[in-house]
Amino acid sequence: MTPAEHAQLALLLEVAGTPKPGNVDRDRDFPDLRFEHFLAGAVGSGAGLRSAETGVPVGEAFEEAVSGMSQQSGGNTQFGALCLLVPLVKATASDACSPDAVTNIVEDTTVEDAEGFYRAFEHVDVFVDDPPEGADEFDVRRGSNAIPAIRDAGLNLYDVMELGADEDGIAHEWTNEFERTFEAGERIVELDGSLSGRGARVYLELLSHEPDSLVAKQHGRKVAESVRVRAQEALQEVQQGDSELVHAFARSLVESEINPGTTADIVAGGLFVALERGVRP
Amino acid sequence: MTPAEHAQLALLLEVAGTPKPGNVDRDRDFPDLRFEHFLAGAVGSGAGLRSAETGVPVGEAFEEAVSGMSQQSGGNTQFGALCLLVPLVKATASDACSPDAVTNIVEDTTVEDAEGFYRAFEHVDVFVDDPPEGADEFDVRRGSNAIPAIRDAGLNLYDVMELGADEDGIAHEWTNEFERTFEAGERIVELDGSLSGRGARVYLELLSHEPDSLVAKQHGRKVAESVRVRAQEALQEVQQGDSELVHAFARSLVESEINPGTTADIVAGGLFVALERGVRP
Repeated sequence: MTPAEHAQLALLLEVAGTPKPGNVDRDRDFPDLRFEHFLAGAVGSGAGLRSAETGVPVGEAFEEAVSGMSQQSGGNTQFGALCLLVPLVKATASDACSPDAVTNIVEDTTVEDAEGFYRAFEHVDVFVDDPPEGADEFDVRRGSNAIPAIRDAGLNLYDVMELGADEDGIAHEWTNEFERTFEAGERIVELDGSLSGRGARVYLELLSHEPDSLVAKQHGRKVAESVRVRAQEALQEVQQGDSELVHAFARSLVESEINPGTTADIVAGGLFVALERGVRP
Repeated sequence: MTPAEHAQLALLLEVAGTPKPGNVDRDRDFPDLRFEHFLAGAVGSGAGLRSAETGVPVGEAFEEAVSGMSQQSGGNTQFGALCLLVPLVKATASDACSPDAVTNIVEDTTVEDAEGFYRAFEHVDVFVDDPPEGADEFDVRRGSNAIPAIRDAGLNLYDVMELGADEDGIAHEWTNEFERTFEAGERIVELDGSLSGRGARVYLELLSHEPDSLVAKQHGRKVAESVRVRAQEALQEVQQGDSELVHAFARSLVESEINPGTTADIVAGGLFVALERGVRP
């Protein structure tokens, strides 16, 4: 399979992994966001991922992927995952699937890439927190309206990600050599069993290591830290062969409408890396 | 979405529908054939489906789709479904998603299309019954070895399908204006609820109307007819809001290793038609 196909498959394997507490998975739909919205999102993302593979700039390919992803009625399904996958596909197709190669790709982004990224927010409703102090004019929620300010300041897409890197787990990957993404990938290679099952396991591991940044934005840092601790407890039980706690944890997150989406996005990136390393369903 | 994207999504929605007694679905894996093999099959089919969309001949596009589908370790996941979807995509892209348009496509196939079809059998292990009497030299199980005989006889792919139309539900669609496929599509449009759920419902309806041809080939006509009757009973209970019997039916088919795969293939074709009619997840 090509890098773009691996990325599309990674999106599908991610959502198929279960249990993934707080997220849609093979066993869980939300009332307005269902498994099949993710299937359609993955299909719709294909053209943008193939553009990234053939050398289209990151911002343009990302906007195309998000636009394609949004052709379903569930809303935002894979925005964050595509934010990782588009540069990963581009790096893999033109150089290698490595931290260095993807870092070169993101560091070489331009102001035009930043423009594409801002336009992508117009295709779908993405949950975003307030921008850092003094950066109101660069608020991604302004969509295309922020583009003149981006141009005036001469910010490329890497610069934009740097603005958010303290608060956003995806932006943090961009500016830190996709560290957690590659770690997740190596861990998926290491594990046994179905790929979607390995993805679900690594989801729980990641969630137990670091608070999810989407949960922190939506519910505050304390809640995110408490979710991390509970993930750690659930993981310990799973390691001892008992999955009762992880299912209870999953139910409780759904009831509280807590959705560790950033962690799921990183798992999708990790699945891509694992597929590139040669594992396959 | 484009016709090729609709076809890829149809493959995914088909396998996601549950309960689909006797087949892999969102809630059921078999030991060696798992849900994620179907996800990989759908991703891998993409390039061949896009070829059909851009005018590549049916046989060549089909072989490409099957070759792509086979890049997973589960074996045959969607051979029959692709046999319906490739001409449907080609008809939709060049003319219309209608019985007439797809009939024109399949009637216009050539000897070269037949050759592509035979080569496709070399990519994956497909269950096929003995050929009709006197047609041993055209046995698809011979793969490329049958091509000289096909050339000598000047058989196009429609002719090849005619040879199998009495015994094979997919070949029957080819030579009968894709009748059940379009009926399934219209029915999916008519129903309410998630698209994968509608697919599962129509699967049960189709199975209750006609014996599945794959079951007939693998287990004999009597078994196939008994499965039809039991599907009818399960459907009646489902219509009355009781799903206990359909789940018991599903368990029993799995225990007996009975797999109504042709019916699932027709549902995939029907989901494509429904997506082309404007329904979407």
